[in-house]
Amino acid sequence: MKRLPKRGAYDRETVFKILDEAFVCHVGFVVEGQPFVIPTNFGRSGETLYLHGSAASRMLRTLSQGIPVCVTVTLTDGLVLARSAFHHSVNYRSVVVLGTARLVEDPAEKMEALRLFTEHIMKGRWGDIRWPSEHEMKGTTVLALPLEEVSAKVRTGGPIDDEEDYSLPVWAGVLPLPVVPAEPIADARLKAGTEVPGYMKSYRRG
Amino acid sequence: MKRLPKRGAYDRETVFKILDEAFVCHVGFVVEGQPFVIPTNFGRSGETLYLHGSAASRMLRTLSQGIPVCVTVTLTDGLVLARSAFHHSVNYRSVVVLGTARLVEDPAEKMEALRLFTEHIMKGRWGDIRWPSEHEMKGTTVLALPLEEVSAKVRTGGPIDDEEDYSLPVWAGVLPLPVVPAEPIADARLKAGTEVPGYMKSYRRG
Repeated sequence: MKRLPKRGAYDRETVFKILDEAFVCHVGFVVEGQPFVIPTNFGRSGETLYLHGSAASRMLRTLSQGIPVCVTVTLTDGLVLARSAFHHSVNYRSVVVLGTARLVEDPAEKMEALRLFTEHIMKGRWGDIRWPSEHEMKGTTVLALPLEEVSAKVRTGGPIDDEEDYSLPVWAGVLPLPVVPAEPIADARLKAGTEVPGYMKSYRRG
Repeated sequence: MKRLPKRGAYDRETVFKILDEAFVCHVGFVVEGQPFVIPTNFGRSGETLYLHGSAASRMLRTLSQGIPVCVTVTLTDGLVLARSAFHHSVNYRSVVVLGTARLVEDPAEKMEALRLFTEHIMKGRWGDIRWPSEHEMKGTTVLALPLEEVSAKVRTGGPIDDEEDYSLPVWAGVLPLPVVPAEPIADARLKAGTEVPGYMKSYRRG
């Protein structure tokens, strides 16, 4: 495990870039010896990762007790096609965060976290929409996980085959699998004359 | 939790379709009370999910002891943009598998699992490539996880806003985020005259 605080600026930036490009993380926790892995959204502010969900969510209630958690974020960039089955692989970038989550109770920090979730999904969105009401705030649990015990793994580039396999007449290389936004689908009840916002037209992950 | 054996053909098909469209799963396991969530490839044959990795992998060694595991597969289909922050969401399809993995020792089952891993990444690939040697087989650990305790979750469609928010002049709808294969990148040492195979040209997930 590579721990963030002990590493240089480059690795910190790599970790942040992976976290900011992804919009779903997988949260691992244990209940009576059974591990659970649940996909969910998240946000980041500096060295804090925020999770949120309904106050009724079992996952949030369990995690807010301060039990060990693992949050993993994975971006898959492409398929690595080698000349042998053995050397087939996937180009990916992943971050694993271990730690204990803290319940966010301060209303200002909680509201800021909710802004981060929205802006994490789509930068610019927060300025357009109706913000959370007091009632919605109460119904939402927000947890903060410090980015202290963090490791990143990255695989890039083409296949690496055994020397004797390079003479095989087999196509080898990488098939990139980018996430490419398609045309926005307007809601059926959209108010007449409402245009697609600029931040959506130029939307890209990463 | 929805358990596969108790459900109808439709749900079984839904689970299989999600598993087959994804090529990375997140494996959750516990070591001394600490959960770990690790991304990895997988394959499927009927009601068995296969995991593999280096025989030296800590994850594989740990799981082959027969401890509880959770394997989660998530496909993200698009961003759901509501008129309020509260109703923002993500369209996704996920499968959660709980159980205990079994070490695959039978050489025929192991080789078939290795075929499945390759074909899961790219259908048609196995017929082109060099198959695993005895040495490679020995260096690979394969685990089988029965698809018995399985649940699926699916969110589709547009945002669902509070009635009073529909009058807001805010664009709302879905931004689809499909995975779209880009042009294949040939390996620098590709044997002259080797063409991109047909199964790659027509490659689509799902």
